[in-house]
Amino acid sequence: MTDIVTFGETMIRLSPPDHLRLEQTASLNLSAGGAELNVAAGVARLGHKAAYVSRLPSNPLGRLIANKAREFGVDVSHMLWADGERVGLYFVEYGAEPRPIRVYYDRKDSAFAHIQPGMIDWAEVLRGVRLFHVGGITPALSASVFESQKEAMIAAHRAGCDVSYDVNYRAALWTVEEARKAQLPLMEHVDILITSLPDQPNITELLSGLEGDDPAAVAQQVADKFGFKAVLVTMRRSLSAQRASLTSLAITKNQIYTDRSYEVETIDPLGGGDACVAGFLTGYLEGDIQVGVRLGNAFSALQQTAPTDLPWPTRDEVEALIFEGGSSMRR
Amino acid sequence: MTDIVTFGETMIRLSPPDHLRLEQTASLNLSAGGAELNVAAGVARLGHKAAYVSRLPSNPLGRLIANKAREFGVDVSHMLWADGERVGLYFVEYGAEPRPIRVYYDRKDSAFAHIQPGMIDWAEVLRGVRLFHVGGITPALSASVFESQKEAMIAAHRAGCDVSYDVNYRAALWTVEEARKAQLPLMEHVDILITSLPDQPNITELLSGLEGDDPAAVAQQVADKFGFKAVLVTMRRSLSAQRASLTSLAITKNQIYTDRSYEVETIDPLGGGDACVAGFLTGYLEGDIQVGVRLGNAFSALQQTAPTDLPWPTRDEVEALIFEGGSSMRR
Amino acid sequence: MTDIVTFGETMIRLSPPDHLRLEQTASLNLSAGGAELNVAAGVARLGHKAAYVSRLPSNPLGRLIANKAREFGVDVSHMLWADGERVGLYFVEYGAEPRPIRVYYDRKDSAFAHIQPGMIDWAEVLRGVRLFHVGGITPALSASVFESQKEAMIAAHRAGCDVSYDVNYRAALWTVEEARKAQLPLMEHVDILITSLPDQPNITELLSGLEGDDPAAVAQQVADKFGFKAVLVTMRRSLSAQRASLTSLAITKNQIYTDRSYEVETIDPLGGGDACVAGFLTGYLEGDIQVGVRLGNAFSALQQTAPTDLPWPTRDEVEALIFEGGSSMRR
Amino acid sequence: MTDIVTFGETMIRLSPPDHLRLEQTASLNLSAGGAELNVAAGVARLGHKAAYVSRLPSNPLGRLIANKAREFGVDVSHMLWADGERVGLYFVEYGAEPRPIRVYYDRKDSAFAHIQPGMIDWAEVLRGVRLFHVGGITPALSASVFESQKEAMIAAHRAGCDVSYDVNYRAALWTVEEARKAQLPLMEHVDILITSLPDQPNITELLSGLEGDDPAAVAQQVADKFGFKAVLVTMRRSLSAQRASLTSLAITKNQIYTDRSYEVETIDPLGGGDACVAGFLTGYLEGDIQVGVRLGNAFSALQQTAPTDLPWPTRDEVEALIFEGGSSMRR
Amino acid sequence: MTDIVTFGETMIRLSPPDHLRLEQTASLNLSAGGAELNVAAGVARLGHKAAYVSRLPSNPLGRLIANKAREFGVDVSHMLWADGERVGLYFVEYGAEPRPIRVYYDRKDSAFAHIQPGMIDWAEVLRGVRLFHVGGITPALSASVFESQKEAMIAAHRAGCDVSYDVNYRAALWTVEEARKAQLPLMEHVDILITSLPDQPNITELLSGLEGDDPAAVAQQVADKFGFKAVLVTMRRSLSAQRASLTSLAITKNQIYTDRSYEVETIDPLGGGDACVAGFLTGYLEGDIQVGVRLGNAFSALQQTAPTDLPWPTRDEVEALIFEGGSSMRR
Amino acid sequence: MTDIVTFGETMIRLSPPDHLRLEQTASLNLSAGGAELNVAAGVARLGHKAAYVSRLPSNPLGRLIANKAREFGVDVSHMLWADGERVGLYFVEYGAEPRPIRVYYDRKDSAFAHIQPGMIDWAEVLRGVRLFHVGGITPALSASVFESQKEAMIAAHRAGCDVSYDVNYRAALWTVEEARKAQLPLMEHVDILITSLPDQPNITELLSGLEGDDPAAVAQQVADKFGFKAVLVTMRRSLSAQRASLTSLAITKNQIYTDRSYEVETIDPLGGGDACVAGFLTGYLEGDIQVGVRLGNAFSALQQTAPTDLPWPTRDEVEALIFEGGSSMRR
Repeated sequence: MTDIVTFGETMIRLSPPDHLRLEQTASLNLSAGGAELNVAAGVARLGHKAAYVSRLPSNPLGRLIANKAREFGVDVSHMLWADGERVGLYFVEYGAEPRPIRVYYDRKDSAFAHIQPGMIDWAEVLRGVRLFHVGGITPALSASVFESQKEAMIAAHRAGCDVSYDVNYRAALWTVEEARKAQLPLMEHVDILITSLPDQPNITELLSGLEGDDPAAVAQQVADKFGFKAVLVTMRRSLSAQRASLTSLAITKNQIYTDRSYEVETIDPLGGGDACVAGFLTGYLEGDIQVGVRLGNAFSALQQTAPTDLPWPTRDEVEALIFEGGSSMRR
Repeated sequence: MTDIVTFGETMIRLSPPDHLRLEQTASLNLSAGGAELNVAAGVARLGHKAAYVSRLPSNPLGRLIANKAREFGVDVSHMLWADGERVGLYFVEYGAEPRPIRVYYDRKDSAFAHIQPGMIDWAEVLRGVRLFHVGGITPALSASVFESQKEAMIAAHRAGCDVSYDVNYRAALWTVEEARKAQLPLMEHVDILITSLPDQPNITELLSGLEGDDPAAVAQQVADKFGFKAVLVTMRRSLSAQRASLTSLAITKNQIYTDRSYEVETIDPLGGGDACVAGFLTGYLEGDIQVGVRLGNAFSALQQTAPTDLPWPTRDEVEALIFEGGSSMRR
Repeated sequence: MTDIVTFGETMIRLSPPDHLRLEQTASLNLSAGGAELNVAAGVARLGHKAAYVSRLPSNPLGRLIANKAREFGVDVSHMLWADGERVGLYFVEYGAEPRPIRVYYDRKDSAFAHIQPGMIDWAEVLRGVRLFHVGGITPALSASVFESQKEAMIAAHRAGCDVSYDVNYRAALWTVEEARKAQLPLMEHVDILITSLPDQPNITELLSGLEGDDPAAVAQQVADKFGFKAVLVTMRRSLSAQRASLTSLAITKNQIYTDRSYEVETIDPLGGGDACVAGFLTGYLEGDIQVGVRLGNAFSALQQTAPTDLPWPTRDEVEALIFEGGSSMRR
Repeated sequence: MTDIVTFGETMIRLSPPDHLRLEQTASLNLSAGGAELNVAAGVARLGHKAAYVSRLPSNPLGRLIANKAREFGVDVSHMLWADGERVGLYFVEYGAEPRPIRVYYDRKDSAFAHIQPGMIDWAEVLRGVRLFHVGGITPALSASVFESQKEAMIAAHRAGCDVSYDVNYRAALWTVEEARKAQLPLMEHVDILITSLPDQPNITELLSGLEGDDPAAVAQQVADKFGFKAVLVTMRRSLSAQRASLTSLAITKNQIYTDRSYEVETIDPLGGGDACVAGFLTGYLEGDIQVGVRLGNAFSALQQTAPTDLPWPTRDEVEALIFEGGSSMRR
Repeated sequence: MTDIVTFGETMIRLSPPDHLRLEQTASLNLSAGGAELNVAAGVARLGHKAAYVSRLPSNPLGRLIANKAREFGVDVSHMLWADGERVGLYFVEYGAEPRPIRVYYDRKDSAFAHIQPGMIDWAEVLRGVRLFHVGGITPALSASVFESQKEAMIAAHRAGCDVSYDVNYRAALWTVEEARKAQLPLMEHVDILITSLPDQPNITELLSGLEGDDPAAVAQQVADKFGFKAVLVTMRRSLSAQRASLTSLAITKNQIYTDRSYEVETIDPLGGGDACVAGFLTGYLEGDIQVGVRLGNAFSALQQTAPTDLPWPTRDEVEALIFEGGSSMRR
Repeated sequence: MTDIVTFGETMIRLSPPDHLRLEQTASLNLSAGGAELNVAAGVARLGHKAAYVSRLPSNPLGRLIANKAREFGVDVSHMLWADGERVGLYFVEYGAEPRPIRVYYDRKDSAFAHIQPGMIDWAEVLRGVRLFHVGGITPALSASVFESQKEAMIAAHRAGCDVSYDVNYRAALWTVEEARKAQLPLMEHVDILITSLPDQPNITELLSGLEGDDPAAVAQQVADKFGFKAVLVTMRRSLSAQRASLTSLAITKNQIYTDRSYEVETIDPLGGGDACVAGFLTGYLEGDIQVGVRLGNAFSALQQTAPTDLPWPTRDEVEALIFEGGSSMRR
């Protein structure tokens, strides 16, 4: 029985090796990435059954994305396949201080952006599933995608499935104003809200008129206002383009859960937030929010120490980091 | 003073190394290619001043294409730059018998496809230019591109510039019927027609109801019917996915020009036809059709012995092949 | 419902790039390969549900093999995981005439070689499965592996599942005499026998005292003697280290099925036989032996045109090759 | 109309990947670099017309250097081509604390070192040009090169062109004593002097008997003594082999221009000084010394975050760094 | 005449490039490494004649190890060659904070592990040799290896050769208790003892019941108790997965030798301890313990700035670091 | 005791991967090559003690060449080391029909070209040595090199050592006329002469006025005229840029030795002639000319199936090819 289903777009990821700029490179490393596949892959990696639903072109690049999902043990049997359409792409230039990592998207008119409500039998997909995870990138992609996600969220609640929603604001896709206007009506279908401080516009801007700087206080107010079962706030501070400090906290109706912070030599920061979400939702599935916060932070820290958005750390490694700390050679 | 101007789309080219399939590769080699840039680059490589006009997004991939053109000495000062648009892409899987080389295009909605008549001041661009080269891929891309090319061809004649047109039929873009219907009206603006046998639908299908198998006879009929100053027929026969035999012939009003054929170990067949065109047009610019046919064949044979569509052989190498033959080690 | 289950060892495959010799290389390309995983992956690739059972160490290399299987859509939920054991490895040096491709095995004491009868609940694994595929490499690995395979074959028949057996003789593992002595008693549990001519010792040596050179006649005698439902004979002739000609034929109780032969530029010959088996078994699952022979040959020809043992061609490509022939560029 | 012309030697640059030492590497990354080409490329990158004059062998490596210049939009139509001569080379081993980056030159007897006065028609080359940039490496290469540079500097003044001179002392080429003796007489033909502190022998040693540690004071004295229109002092401090802090200041007759400093994760420090010069001269061409200092520092900081000496940052990136600061991910 | 002979196992080293995890990589960099070969190579690199004795399979991977030894100028004429056996392997995943570098061994049943006393004519091998170096990994590999090493140590003393012993405790091979029990009886054959603080269990645990934290005091007690001629204590502190601080100290009967510490950007920490030993033993061979401590520290710091376990710094570089300090670019 | 000493220049070899042209490559594969080192390495590889004498700069590239020689087991203890000089380089572009492989030399003023008579104590170097091998490239490099080689050849005869001389004519270095004039006086110091047909100017042109096409007849006349103990004629025919057919024959005073020919898929033809020489001289050292011819041909055929000039086949492989033929997969 599937524990978690995620829904969203995955793109082909292309990045020059060795800190080369795109204009000077003669080759690109190829992988795949997308927030919701990253989360599904992460939860699978940490020991639970995950499925991923999306729409892909029936060409080698589309198949490659489904292959990658399966490589992580993620079920893609509900994938929609589209003939003659295209897959989204993004190009990543790694950064070095003072040049930030840079992402260039080429995702318009992807097979996913053409998804329509009614294409997926959500009742079937979500039968017996415990968690349904979506996020705030998807509704920005097209009107039909927005409606499809809304349809899925409603179906999830109908199926008795908790809905997790990662705000994941992308300035390249829409303004804060547009994002707020579009997403506020979705909040009633959300059980677990995930947001970032301070890399994203403060949740207070996106969701409400709340005020204040303290992550826990903000989270509490948001949870109270919308009646979320849980709110996760991920906090990442860049120390340079290649170093960061991270932690997260969660609140539930009546409790706050915090954890140590990690200093990270960020080989690749992409997917770090998704890894934190995957760890947190793993704890949630296991009925232990504190475990979720710890798994999320450690999984995120380790995920950023290797290339690509996808999460390769094992649960053993994550637990070793939580319980023993890191960074001595093992042999 | 510029000798030749070409107009068309150039895309980013991405191909897995070492005969890997796209689904299995972890990296892609990156280059750029497009029939008309290939021709401009080839003519520049063979010693004449070439310029290339197109429309590119003002992002790293767009700049990369302009950089590549300049690397070959091709003038891109008339390039149109578009903000927030995308560049076309194509993915190449190298073949090995019995698997053919395979090209996957992702070129829809490129900055070039959005070009509009009036965007380019052709009178300015073509002042004093002797040859204007376009081809049959461009008009298939969008209605506005079709109109833009037509506008340019008319302007070329007005500027006293000969127009060269490579039929270059692509089944992925349109049917033979559509291709014929669209291109026939363009033929009155053409001075030099270029086509391939037998890889492309016979020119008789595309342009008329003429009959017959003999390339020279077909070329002669076409030339007569449309009043072309010259017709070049490139002839390539695949011996396997990695070997081919090639030659070409040209006819003018009153003469036929033939050449030896070359057997080629095709490291990369893409751009081979464009190299032949570049060689031929070089001869045309130098007033010697026979030289053009010879340069075209030798340049094409050599161009296919190295990766990418772009033509790296030098004129010295081409002439050494023509006059001394190939394939002994030099040291 | 799973259509086919395969059982055997998969190893990590390491090969120098660019025809480098092992002694001179500074890097190795990494993949995974094993006859029975190759077959499962091939059948999955051609459209049927496949599962693979083996025993792997619970370390990154063991996980990598399971990941690869899943990447191909092969179910590995019945995999046995072993702590503190090793995975088998093989090193491949690509050949060029007159130097043959060379494989160096380092597979002793692998987790798979330590498998014991009783470790796998075959009744559970094979419930509802239509085909169980094994081969002649496995019984050569260790006594306990031999017994485990025998146990599985008996269980397969008990479960109403046809058993397919690829003789796959490896001189590095045992003598012909040992191979015959060990395998003859297994033949009563076999429904589909697969063998190669002439790269393997003639099936007449391995299985009996039969005589004759004609593949069809030999196959018919073997089928008659052992009462096999079908016999597939794969025939490969090296034209050089980098070219081969291949075909296969099958016989059933009352018919012989032949096919055209393919000339192949063999980028990588490893896994070619397994691809043929996968194609054949696909036809068998679809109830059409003639389709199986054609799929097998075309799938094998295409599989050898890209690196690694694993089979990347799609069913569409295979059918295009069968129905349209190969080797013209598509664009 | 060309804004700036630079003159000097460009060499082929060869460096092992991945921090490998030369003795252990099996491959080298290939690029091109030379202080004066780097400056021309940088000014072109920042938006002005640049030309580069040098002498190269007419072989693939010589052409490669001219191609690279053109790739950056630098005009090389005045390049001298030499048959049968060699191109200079340098080998770069990247450093890691406590091992410094190391450059091994193999530049003796290059085509450039054989340049002779009179070979270049400087009046023609510099007609209408506003800036002519040279430096202190060139005169150390050979007597004929020294004379050629002097000839060019004099011609520049005659053409009404300001002359910029980067002291760029290289201990591998000559002693401080030799450098002073050779260069002092050139100073009368210089308008803009560029020097580094403290990586180069203090300008006081090279040019005069002046004293003092304060960069601004030293610069002022130098400017006063020689009557320079402007002096740029670049200041770089290594924090480790892979981190540095940098800034620069400029003085003119009556003013001092300073800027913030940048902390840099130096993927490749080579060309960092040249990038600063390019930025500064861009400001100079635009009539704003303060803009020049800021462009120089930001361009230099960004240039060092990617491999090779050549400057890939765009003006947009540079201005974003100046006005918005660096290092947050953009997507 | 050989100055030093070392004895132990060398394995093939395989590591993914670019911080990739093993599960995600498509290639592995290949090298060789083993504590005792590393030491022999280091001493050869620093100017003395070194020989290395081991047992290798007569296949390409075995030959590759002997080739590597020779590449460093290490004499391998006493190597034992074994037919049909395997070479040990280890897989290295580079670390980034908080993920430590990780080594996975696959060394069981290697040709070296099957070495037997009597296989090597130690009297012949060690004739005229001044130092014999072994370590604490070897005796953990198998009983016959333990006996072989003991036999060699006794033969060394008989040949008038000093014996150096690097404790080099590996938790993957045995417990501290087992290590102590096995090694204590070997101590009577040891002249120079080498150990690490604090990465290894304190020497007090391994060798005795001594107490105290101060390295010098511990070393002195150990030396006194066992009558060692010299004790070297290497001290390494990880600042992150990619930075470390290191130094070492030595004591002899009546003196303590210390040195500055080095901060290192550790491109590859493996082999760093062995490089320190090589430097120290070089000083020992030259009759100057203080020189040995300095060479060891500088050699170790430099060795860790390039990939692989093997030591590529030259004596010139080492001395430049000792006498001039590091980290300014040289050109 | 050393069996063979060779003397000549070794250069750093740089070649673009994947059939890229030099102008388009971003990296170069690095190796080393030189006819006389290749021969020494080959003889060592086939089982005899070989030493190599040359002059190299004391920098990383010079050391790399000595390291490579040692890697093959070649003794370089008599190497001359030069401070501040350069090593020769050559750039290799692999060919594909009709483009031949192309070698660009950059060897002028190398440390070797500055060698002087008297620098090497040949009496010491050649004491007890059986064969001294040199060739016709060396005397073309400089006058002092010519004299040094002559000095060495005379010393060899004085030391009772046979002298082998490979004509190895290089058109890039001198004319046939110059070559003849310079080398004829050396012939009196030669015992074994090696030449190629037809890639080199016929030996009749180089050495005499003899006539005729038949290799055996020519060889016999040459041997008779100069009194050589043996003459080896290597014969290579290019079938395309990537295929060749080769064989060789030898004559002695009273006998002719021939062998089968090999058809080769030439991954890299460089060093193929040297491998043949190495095989032949191995037979000569073993007192069996027929064995020498066979070893030479098979070793040469196998050597050309992997990259670089250096010879990696083993004696086992060579003998397997001679006695069993090639090209079936072994596993």
